[in-house]
Amino acid sequence: MNRLSLNQKTVNGCTLPEAVAACVRAGVASIGVWREPLREFGVEAGAALIADAGLHVSSLCRGGFFTAPDLGEVLADNRRAIDETAALDADCLVLVVGGLPPGSRDLPAARARVADVLAALIPYAAERRVRLALEPMNPIYCADRGVLSTLGQALDLAEQHDPAVVGVVVDSFHVWWDPDLERQVARAADRIASFQVCDWITPLPADTLLARGMMGDGHIDFRHLADLVAKAGYTGDVEVEIFNADLWREDPDSVVATVVRRYAEHVAG
Amino acid sequence: MNRLSLNQKTVNGCTLPEAVAACVRAGVASIGVWREPLREFGVEAGAALIADAGLHVSSLCRGGFFTAPDLGEVLADNRRAIDETAALDADCLVLVVGGLPPGSRDLPAARARVADVLAALIPYAAERRVRLALEPMNPIYCADRGVLSTLGQALDLAEQHDPAVVGVVVDSFHVWWDPDLERQVARAADRIASFQVCDWITPLPADTLLARGMMGDGHIDFRHLADLVAKAGYTGDVEVEIFNADLWREDPDSVVATVVRRYAEHVAG
Repeated sequence: MNRLSLNQKTVNGCTLPEAVAACVRAGVASIGVWREPLREFGVEAGAALIADAGLHVSSLCRGGFFTAPDLGEVLADNRRAIDETAALDADCLVLVVGGLPPGSRDLPAARARVADVLAALIPYAAERRVRLALEPMNPIYCADRGVLSTLGQALDLAEQHDPAVVGVVVDSFHVWWDPDLERQVARAADRIASFQVCDWITPLPADTLLARGMMGDGHIDFRHLADLVAKAGYTGDVEVEIFNADLWREDPDSVVATVVRRYAEHVAG
Repeated sequence: MNRLSLNQKTVNGCTLPEAVAACVRAGVASIGVWREPLREFGVEAGAALIADAGLHVSSLCRGGFFTAPDLGEVLADNRRAIDETAALDADCLVLVVGGLPPGSRDLPAARARVADVLAALIPYAAERRVRLALEPMNPIYCADRGVLSTLGQALDLAEQHDPAVVGVVVDSFHVWWDPDLERQVARAADRIASFQVCDWITPLPADTLLARGMMGDGHIDFRHLADLVAKAGYTGDVEVEIFNADLWREDPDSVVATVVRRYAEHVAG
């Protein structure tokens, strides 16, 4: 329970103060913060609010979208995200690297672009002691969201850089199906910067972006994955991040109570 | 053009004679047959109809679903499918291996079951000179349709058997995102028993089973994939298989005409 972190997306209707208050009421010690509600409240004010509440920030979500056409804007926005991560003293900045550029079918080129933009951001992140966390995404999002499709591929990229500056996210929704999961999580070792959980439910909801389920409602063996991550040496927070329109309509305190219960039932060792 | 095959699913509203006639009218020399409409018409009658029309059968779709609870029924149904493949003199029997059994979250066990059932079917297929084609499926279908998720994983399994009896399907929809695609298609070599094409479109249609697009409507670089498959030594048919509810409402002759045109524009070398 003391490793559970509530990703703000799970209570998407909440402002930052509301999400922080819900964590405090439920005894959840950490939060995964999203940039949009953070900026709405103000970065410095948000950092102070979270610190005053005694919460730890397990991640800032998210930077990335490295494949967007305007390289200058991509770099500027990701540097802002790095600054925000430093301001929150968050464990990492989650990077969703982006899909194919508009009109392009050249996947190798998009992947090369991701490597180039990452390299360009390294010095700025290193100076601010911010850890970048590459998120491999379920192939369902390869075209429009993330051309990093497997943990192995994310590690191939991460391993070109200092582990203090570039790690990876292990998110159950994105990696659960991978036939090479056992080997790649072991390989990830101290590169694991974030461990996120939500379930794969069927039939998949119509909007694939909001297709994620509460742990226990779907097909993922969380204990197996949590064991792999623990054996790999990860001792950090376990962030519950659920994009789901039905869940977002529920009362946030009730959602957080369910998260706490399901985490204990399905994830915690 | 002489390598184009129309998978019957692309004109799903057609009976077998209607699909055969549509191929003949459009000058398409091969057809991928589905078991349900074949049995509706009669297996022997269907084989005679197709042969009389001068068509070649590039595949029978499909056997598999090895993870279903009743092993006896799984084996019996797949032996029937092998017999039907032999009756049609089809190039291969496509195997969709099945998802997680009802109520199970044990993916490694489901994958082991697939290997066991495949091994049990080998002698029956070998005696009838039928080639089984393992179809790795996009991870979007891992839970409910196919626990073989990558071409590499399918090859790991196929390579335990005689290549004359066990091959693999390379289907653009299922493999296009794979960061290891180049290497695995080259490795597949004479294991490639079927090459199927359709596009990955976004936003993904609500029913993921019917989420496939006409070549050119989505994000896949078909020429790149066709080049890889050709370099691997494959010279067989290229089957256009599109599960799409909008397409199924169109006039079949118009659909086939579009298939012929888009194949020439996007796939043929």
